[in-house]
Amino acid sequence: MMGYQDITVGIDQRVCTITLNRPDRLNAWTERMEQEMRAAVLAAEADAQVRAIVVTGAGRGFCAGADMDILEAGAAGSTGAEAEAPPPAADALQGLARNYAWRFSYLLQVKKPVFAAINGPIAGIGLCMALFCDFRYMAEGQKMTTAFAKRGLIAEHGASWMLPRLVGVTHALDLLMSARTLVTAEAAQIGLVKALPADGFLAAVQAVARELVHSASPRSIGVIKRQVYDGLFQDLDQAWRRADEDMAASFASEDFKEGVAHFLEKRAPNFSGR
Amino acid sequence: MMGYQDITVGIDQRVCTITLNRPDRLNAWTERMEQEMRAAVLAAEADAQVRAIVVTGAGRGFCAGADMDILEAGAAGSTGAEAEAPPPAADALQGLARNYAWRFSYLLQVKKPVFAAINGPIAGIGLCMALFCDFRYMAEGQKMTTAFAKRGLIAEHGASWMLPRLVGVTHALDLLMSARTLVTAEAAQIGLVKALPADGFLAAVQAVARELVHSASPRSIGVIKRQVYDGLFQDLDQAWRRADEDMAASFASEDFKEGVAHFLEKRAPNFSGR
Amino acid sequence: MMGYQDITVGIDQRVCTITLNRPDRLNAWTERMEQEMRAAVLAAEADAQVRAIVVTGAGRGFCAGADMDILEAGAAGSTGAEAEAPPPAADALQGLARNYAWRFSYLLQVKKPVFAAINGPIAGIGLCMALFCDFRYMAEGQKMTTAFAKRGLIAEHGASWMLPRLVGVTHALDLLMSARTLVTAEAAQIGLVKALPADGFLAAVQAVARELVHSASPRSIGVIKRQVYDGLFQDLDQAWRRADEDMAASFASEDFKEGVAHFLEKRAPNFSGR
Repeated sequence: MMGYQDITVGIDQRVCTITLNRPDRLNAWTERMEQEMRAAVLAAEADAQVRAIVVTGAGRGFCAGADMDILEAGAAGSTGAEAEAPPPAADALQGLARNYAWRFSYLLQVKKPVFAAINGPIAGIGLCMALFCDFRYMAEGQKMTTAFAKRGLIAEHGASWMLPRLVGVTHALDLLMSARTLVTAEAAQIGLVKALPADGFLAAVQAVARELVHSASPRSIGVIKRQVYDGLFQDLDQAWRRADEDMAASFASEDFKEGVAHFLEKRAPNFSGR
Repeated sequence: MMGYQDITVGIDQRVCTITLNRPDRLNAWTERMEQEMRAAVLAAEADAQVRAIVVTGAGRGFCAGADMDILEAGAAGSTGAEAEAPPPAADALQGLARNYAWRFSYLLQVKKPVFAAINGPIAGIGLCMALFCDFRYMAEGQKMTTAFAKRGLIAEHGASWMLPRLVGVTHALDLLMSARTLVTAEAAQIGLVKALPADGFLAAVQAVARELVHSASPRSIGVIKRQVYDGLFQDLDQAWRRADEDMAASFASEDFKEGVAHFLEKRAPNFSGR
Repeated sequence: MMGYQDITVGIDQRVCTITLNRPDRLNAWTERMEQEMRAAVLAAEADAQVRAIVVTGAGRGFCAGADMDILEAGAAGSTGAEAEAPPPAADALQGLARNYAWRFSYLLQVKKPVFAAINGPIAGIGLCMALFCDFRYMAEGQKMTTAFAKRGLIAEHGASWMLPRLVGVTHALDLLMSARTLVTAEAAQIGLVKALPADGFLAAVQAVARELVHSASPRSIGVIKRQVYDGLFQDLDQAWRRADEDMAASFASEDFKEGVAHFLEKRAPNFSGR
């Protein structure tokens, strides 16, 4: 659908599932995959039928990192795709918006929750992408590595900033410096993912996503997501001031009227998202 | 005492206990309760007999959130009490002080440790208040919810800023977006509260508070509390510079002399707090 | 070696071990120990044979904190060594560098991983130092205390800033306000240390350090360490921008060529660190 080559997209019961689709390469990352994923995410954000987004991998892998052919070419002296990346859009922006203009950080600004469903091995740039999803689930018995330090590379694409905020400074230093391989159980133990059985894994993550958006206002979810990430760049005064503005605006929303009405009428909510 | 209506206040063995007291409404929050609690907290801070403050609820609830009557009036179009809130005092302040001028953030600046003793259900604005206590204890088998997203509302009163700093970004997104109900065990598992048996719960929290202040200098505790919260808004250079100033001042204090003397004399300390 | 008095230094298989060496005083901290440790750390950083640094204590203690003789003199009115500390080098610096110019924060800027091997009791200034090591291991059955609040002192030397970033705000308030004693198991439970058996403890930490640097590029490890700590003072835009610059530079490094080559040739890496 929509002429995608390196991904596939499907929508079912309010959940849009984006599947990285180069299974013969363990879904190794490409420029094309990146552009297609971004297009699919933004389309899902704009689609009123969609309330949550799940990103997973086709076949037995999630994402093996950058395609080794590209790294090999880079090591051999030719200019790799990554080095050719265009100058970031951040330069044209002001204030908080600059933080959301980077390769994966646009995900933080998507007004719907984004779930990484890590079905198989995840490494390097694939892990960087997953760090900028709101929630990470991982099939039991799978493997994860930051990879970079074993290739003589560094913590790319915001990983050095986000990973400490997800698992703390000490675990982040360990994972990034050593580039050692973690199995699902250890990744769950340090709080980086939640583990789910491999059997029926994707359906289970889709069910968690559906459950999250089932009874909460889509408008509320979008505002709250912005509040939480903006709050990482604000002091408490700035965050509280903005929250009071957001609170006043929410009192005028359709979803607030419905939120009170379904409570008083003791029925399931029917939020419009406005 | 002191003509309070929506709270009661008692002091016993250095611990001041403030009880939210609308048990027939599960202690649902009111403007009056808020003003009375603030007055009682500031009185306890000024009282040399008090070294720790415990906030709890009367009857079977802690705080059910904003009174639904107020929300209902808001949804029906009339102006709710919250929308009428006066402009924050923060505007008149400079620097770090602005962060402590908001509805509940004044608690961070109180020079004595504040404990939330969550004896029963806690929701919405009641949870926001508890996030700004220094320590949270919760009776086993009770329930907690952020509530807002189910009402079409947003993360109010600094919750979007403080919750990620207490339980991490991922748990904060989950709790705020879903507004799902957690039982005590899960709230404890993610580090938001410590669980204690329901039987003898309040007395147990009071004992923990008393134990905390038993052998430590009140002056030290007050300075350390300021250091830790200020540090959330400072870089390391600013924090270290200020700590060196605080260290020099502490060497000139009565509590330092007593802190060394009781150690050398192998006796219990008798700190003046100066 | 090198005329050290309050420490000893040894290097074995890429790991430099610095031992605080006043065993008759439980290695209580002195100005001389501090200067010697800094000299030894900087020498290890400059030594191409060394890839990791371990700090431990001689005899049954790690570091009992400031020498009580010094505190006693301070309490008696004479000027203690701490009050005589020279003005910090931070004043002469700009930007991020100011954060790394303080008593222990220079450790964050050392380009090799630093391990605290807490073999015995750790208190006060000894704990402050350990907070600025990258990794903390602690022998089972040992004891830890921040100590300050029981002496009428405050959270010294950056502890109020770093401890909340390692264990969260609530645990930091508890440990600093109460100055209570934790055993190894509790320190591990809150994530402040990893516990290892007392039997063979130092050798086990040295093995962990060796394992960390075994298969990762020393150049990568140094850059990643800088990225992670700098990231605590940057927003995401600043961190991502710098990471892209670091990524481009890494593509031109010897270690990147070796990182790809050993992978393709299915052999152990032989990184030069350049």
